[in-house]
Amino acid sequence: MDSERNFEGIAQEIIALLDAKKYMRARDKILGLLEVDMAEALEEVIERLGIEYAVILFRMLPKDVSVEVFSYLPSDDQLAVVNVITDKEVKYIIDELDFDDMIDVLEELPANIVDKILEKSTKEERKQINTFLNYPDDSAGSLMTPDYISLQKDWSVGDAMAHIKRVGMDSETVYTCYVKDRGRKLIGIVSLRTLVISEPETPISGIINEDVVYVNVYDDQEDVSEMFKKYGYLAIPVVDNEMRIVGIITVDDIFGVIEEEYSEDFERMAGVLDSSDAEYLDIGVFKHVRNRLPWLMLLMISAMLTGGIIRSFERLLSNVISLAVYLPMLMGTGGNSGSQSATLIIRGMAVGDIEMRDAHKVLWKELRVSLIVGLALSVLNMVKIILLDRENVLVAATVCVSMAVIVTMAKCIGGMLPMLAKRVGIDPALMAAPMISSLTDILSCLTYFTLASFVLRL
Amino acid sequence: MDSERNFEGIAQEIIALLDAKKYMRARDKILGLLEVDMAEALEEVIERLGIEYAVILFRMLPKDVSVEVFSYLPSDDQLAVVNVITDKEVKYIIDELDFDDMIDVLEELPANIVDKILEKSTKEERKQINTFLNYPDDSAGSLMTPDYISLQKDWSVGDAMAHIKRVGMDSETVYTCYVKDRGRKLIGIVSLRTLVISEPETPISGIINEDVVYVNVYDDQEDVSEMFKKYGYLAIPVVDNEMRIVGIITVDDIFGVIEEEYSEDFERMAGVLDSSDAEYLDIGVFKHVRNRLPWLMLLMISAMLTGGIIRSFERLLSNVISLAVYLPMLMGTGGNSGSQSATLIIRGMAVGDIEMRDAHKVLWKELRVSLIVGLALSVLNMVKIILLDRENVLVAATVCVSMAVIVTMAKCIGGMLPMLAKRVGIDPALMAAPMISSLTDILSCLTYFTLASFVLRL
Repeated sequence: MDSERNFEGIAQEIIALLDAKKYMRARDKILGLLEVDMAEALEEVIERLGIEYAVILFRMLPKDVSVEVFSYLPSDDQLAVVNVITDKEVKYIIDELDFDDMIDVLEELPANIVDKILEKSTKEERKQINTFLNYPDDSAGSLMTPDYISLQKDWSVGDAMAHIKRVGMDSETVYTCYVKDRGRKLIGIVSLRTLVISEPETPISGIINEDVVYVNVYDDQEDVSEMFKKYGYLAIPVVDNEMRIVGIITVDDIFGVIEEEYSEDFERMAGVLDSSDAEYLDIGVFKHVRNRLPWLMLLMISAMLTGGIIRSFERLLSNVISLAVYLPMLMGTGGNSGSQSATLIIRGMAVGDIEMRDAHKVLWKELRVSLIVGLALSVLNMVKIILLDRENVLVAATVCVSMAVIVTMAKCIGGMLPMLAKRVGIDPALMAAPMISSLTDILSCLTYFTLASFVLRL
Repeated sequence: MDSERNFEGIAQEIIALLDAKKYMRARDKILGLLEVDMAEALEEVIERLGIEYAVILFRMLPKDVSVEVFSYLPSDDQLAVVNVITDKEVKYIIDELDFDDMIDVLEELPANIVDKILEKSTKEERKQINTFLNYPDDSAGSLMTPDYISLQKDWSVGDAMAHIKRVGMDSETVYTCYVKDRGRKLIGIVSLRTLVISEPETPISGIINEDVVYVNVYDDQEDVSEMFKKYGYLAIPVVDNEMRIVGIITVDDIFGVIEEEYSEDFERMAGVLDSSDAEYLDIGVFKHVRNRLPWLMLLMISAMLTGGIIRSFERLLSNVISLAVYLPMLMGTGGNSGSQSATLIIRGMAVGDIEMRDAHKVLWKELRVSLIVGLALSVLNMVKIILLDRENVLVAATVCVSMAVIVTMAKCIGGMLPMLAKRVGIDPALMAAPMISSLTDILSCLTYFTLASFVLRL
């Protein structure tokens, strides 16, 4: 994208201008950008020149622009800005932010600053803010905003349009409006599209859509993002246990959720715990250790089991020392084969292509694939071991037969374990990786040495 | 979600009713659902009872509903339906579909059916359809729809609202309108929100927003999804090389792109090639083999190198056979350590947390983390080897020092290789996995045996 390349250049110019203390020219440059790009430029200024320069530039922005830019900064940069500007400036920003952005900021600020900010709010405001601050981190409640448009059932389309005109600027979206009964219960939605193409005198009750898809305030954010993917809506209302609407979630807030989910899956498959939102570079060394050590330890202990198996075949090994040469290759190929299958199945289940009832189809497919793959790898090995290594043909046969058996076992285990994990209610990504590598290692070793004892009659 | 649980029950009832040939009651049941859920119910009918039953039900739906439901079916089920219904019915569906859905369907249909459908279209229509069919699979062009609202610069807000009222029902979105000059060049956008809160006599030129974010028709869909994530827009216009607007992409089409991208990353990290859109169960055995074998072969060949190293230390190994007991554990832990780091870095780069210039910070962090992790694992090993295995203290020392060195090397390589891959323009997910496992395997072996020769003076 041209605009992307352009933006990088402008950010560099702004940094150079600030560094040369040409503040007014830096201001003119940044004002040529969109707010979200201004925020990105400020981020770079903070990183390259420090927070002081960034705040000089930030203070030179028009007030309404500065609030918008602030809302786009990552939370650690927001905190850095708050720590440098005056209390009065902080209060102004907080007051002007959209409600959901304000909640996000307040969640990150130290309690004493939050208290100071809330001091001057009305009792009503404080109550609402505290309610929002208390929703669990991964819940629909933590994603929603109370700034939506609500209509009365007995209004006309003309009334509704006049209402939207009045309050539309302060709403997160005006494109879906929510119709409530007297008890704040959600009874339906009306899209702005429908309002616009209807005659002004039409009653709202005549165009209301009562098939509303909604979520509960305590529903998991992952379920919410699934609903957005499925229905393609721009916003979904959030209700409490009495079906009273308490807020809405808009589609732009879902991208972050999707990203978080996928990162979690990735990290689990690589054996890293606790994928908090924190960025890699912001996480301390000891926290990184805590996230990674347990997994490595678990896998190491299971590898010790493999060591025990090797030890029990020590006599065999000391007689035919070259068996050791092929062991890592067999174990490695087994592990890789298994993780290929597991990844495909985990992804297939995640996107809904593979259901529990498909288990036998998966097994049948993996069985056939693995027989062909195993055979191919065996033949390659046979050629290499006999021609290049000039190894005993019995050793070659042992390695090749083991290879075929190991690949087949590994692929079938890799295909079945994620489904088994799901059946017993464990996240497949979390359980599959270590279980598969441990199981295939142990089975690879046992298969290889047992076959060797048999073939080599030792 | 209650509605989710409910839906599964209703789908089962529909299948039972169809199976008992109570078609009218099945029809009443399915009509109680939202269109996207009807499509899901039909999918289950196809899978459980076969396409014939599904088509009976499909034909009983009101015509406009059936088109909508058709658009939500996965493409293999669409094809199955098309093969069973009459040409006239196919033609009706194609005509009534939204333009972008129609293109998606036409792309999947066999050429002779497409020709028959296009026979009765006007020359103009055929030309447009063919243009859309020809955009590359992963391009912005393949995602866009030409059904958007365009406004004239010299109109008033009132004119615009009247225009939207007239054509609004056929547009993909009415919430962002596009302003073109006489030469079809895009000059700005106006949101419906702005139109609604403006007075009818306001000229469009007075409220037009000229800071438009747009994409080129040949831009990669991954870049498009990045822009949606960054800007949070509901739609982004697509222009040709002359800046003429040719279509728009709406946010609901982006979820599929994001899913595709992540699946690709996953599969690459697990060493599976060619993540086409096809579902796991739909891919044939030989295609699965072709997707997986190359990677396994590559990794196996690199493991043969490791075998070569082991062979060169055969004399050492035959003297101290118990060295072989600990080799798989050391290699495995090295591989796991490296892949943990690589995954974190690949994810960090993908979401923009880690930039190229952070390389030294990454290295410094990985170095400290790995020293602590390596030390912890070494101590655990020392205790186990001496107390449980009652092994020679020199062997124990060799294993423990090797462990610390291997973990440190693996984590530093795991941290740096993905960045190096990106620097030279290779997808980090694609290159990192095999390179890291090969490199750590080879280095683990060399470290262990070299240290052993030294410590054990053999």
